[in-house]
Amino acid sequence: MLLDDYFQTYLPIIENQLKAAVNTIDRPYLAELRYMLQYHMGWEGDGAGPEARGKRIRPILVLLTTMAAGGEWQNALPATCAVELIHNFSLIHDDIEDNSPLRRGRPTIWKKWGVAHATNAGDAMFTLAHIEIFRLIKILPFETVIKAAELLQRTCLHLTQGQYLDLAYEQRSDLTAIDYWPMISGKTGALLAACTELGSMIALAPEPICQAYRQFGFSLGLAFQAQDDFLGIWGDTALTGKSTENDLVTGKKTLPIVYGLSKQGKFFQRWSDGPITPTDTIGVAHILSEEGAKEFVLSQVSQLTAEAIQSLEAANPGGEAAVILRQLAERLLTRQS
Amino acid sequence: MLLDDYFQTYLPIIENQLKAAVNTIDRPYLAELRYMLQYHMGWEGDGAGPEARGKRIRPILVLLTTMAAGGEWQNALPATCAVELIHNFSLIHDDIEDNSPLRRGRPTIWKKWGVAHATNAGDAMFTLAHIEIFRLIKILPFETVIKAAELLQRTCLHLTQGQYLDLAYEQRSDLTAIDYWPMISGKTGALLAACTELGSMIALAPEPICQAYRQFGFSLGLAFQAQDDFLGIWGDTALTGKSTENDLVTGKKTLPIVYGLSKQGKFFQRWSDGPITPTDTIGVAHILSEEGAKEFVLSQVSQLTAEAIQSLEAANPGGEAAVILRQLAERLLTRQS
Repeated sequence: MLLDDYFQTYLPIIENQLKAAVNTIDRPYLAELRYMLQYHMGWEGDGAGPEARGKRIRPILVLLTTMAAGGEWQNALPATCAVELIHNFSLIHDDIEDNSPLRRGRPTIWKKWGVAHATNAGDAMFTLAHIEIFRLIKILPFETVIKAAELLQRTCLHLTQGQYLDLAYEQRSDLTAIDYWPMISGKTGALLAACTELGSMIALAPEPICQAYRQFGFSLGLAFQAQDDFLGIWGDTALTGKSTENDLVTGKKTLPIVYGLSKQGKFFQRWSDGPITPTDTIGVAHILSEEGAKEFVLSQVSQLTAEAIQSLEAANPGGEAAVILRQLAERLLTRQS
Repeated sequence: MLLDDYFQTYLPIIENQLKAAVNTIDRPYLAELRYMLQYHMGWEGDGAGPEARGKRIRPILVLLTTMAAGGEWQNALPATCAVELIHNFSLIHDDIEDNSPLRRGRPTIWKKWGVAHATNAGDAMFTLAHIEIFRLIKILPFETVIKAAELLQRTCLHLTQGQYLDLAYEQRSDLTAIDYWPMISGKTGALLAACTELGSMIALAPEPICQAYRQFGFSLGLAFQAQDDFLGIWGDTALTGKSTENDLVTGKKTLPIVYGLSKQGKFFQRWSDGPITPTDTIGVAHILSEEGAKEFVLSQVSQLTAEAIQSLEAANPGGEAAVILRQLAERLLTRQS
């Protein structure tokens, strides 16, 4: 099987598990709360469908890791659900915090139901995620279930810390790449690290192997985010579908931007002069390239990818899933959108 | 010892545990995030002090239940922290959702730092709570730790469901007491039920005893809320300190109000005619009394209190803590503020 076959085989199963988790909110008088979550997950409402669901990379990563570490994929299902629900909880709250009216081309929960309902719906999604992980009790030794549940919880604390930095950086232009990594470690690295650590824990792999898988997920997450940041400025806007959402326009503190700011040169000057409009982006992106940002970001992506692959090899993954995990890493990092 | 002695003895210990939990956010670049939580907890910033901290009823309830069920109070400390942090997480998000500028006389987190930071700080408080409960691993059998952690998580799902109803009811005037109870079961009953169930689980009490304690906490929570609703309209405003915040003015869907609405009489008419001003409150409260709302609410408080005491007796509590638990129940329910 190739990576796409894996997606085709396992995504419907994961999707059913996710639906079952959300459907535990089953009282008739809670139908609207359930609907908000179903809408956000891309199952209900205008524009529902695969395009509205995101890539479900995180649950696939858990499944593949469990298999590569010698476990049964079925055992991973509670954790696949948990990580995807946590990802989606963070999206619901991030959309409020970033004031984003659209998510995957559809109005966000806060835009449709207001900030109050969206805050609360995110909290509900958050608790559903953590309830899911306890289903491991039928599969794993009690001690391992506790480790998994605590890992998931510490991951969420890390997420909120990364998100705090993201919000705190909005007002700052004195940032360097050193400020960037703790933000991204929290916002992206922590959950991907949890995916691969959980996957290997579920296979009951020895601790050093679990830590190698964890490091694989973490480096993969950072590489993925740095690549995302690259595309956010130099990506083909037709492919990313974000022509008016170039990171130079939105002012997000991405890796190329903090690199450029730290140079205190022409880019820093332009940034300090005030907002960059969509028509400015080509020129400003060119200045950034000239100051070395493009080269720097690509070198970071390639170094982190090498570290990810090295950690994966250290975990000594087995069977077809090992091949697919490498494919998944390569696909994430060579993508153009 | 009397109830007040218990508060005096144990509150400083609980407070230190709470501070230690928040201080696990210890990186220098996260100092502001930690400060937001310290501010909300009443330890830092303008107006910090006992008045800004709330009554800490929930952790005391956990401690007393553990003792009454024959356990060591020290073993309950992780759970006392967890329930108080969850209570405070819900306050941070409720203040956003209700658009409340003040909490215990001080500006709320969203008012000081904005909705984005407040949403995220609430999420951080939430995860800290759940991380605390895992400290039981050094005290209890693994299986009991899992039960405790899952109970806490299901409690939070219940909280979000109650909060959803509260938000959904804002726009409705077709409510009856039947709609009220599921809202309050989630918003108030669930966490008090968790306090007493956790307390007895920590004492390793048999399941039927734990369920009796749970029922005690649940009935106590509902009675407490109904009493709060009574004071929200007929309380001595000098004692509650809420002269301009009479529930008739804020329009909250409390028990006397939904009772009055369901009568479809003079109160319903007045409610439908538009907002009630502070100067209207005495007259409208009188109409509500005439329609039987005051009597109805007091009868509910007394019935729920009787149920709470009955459940407490069924749990067969022992030692001095048993006496104090009864005192605590009585004090909550005869309070004038």
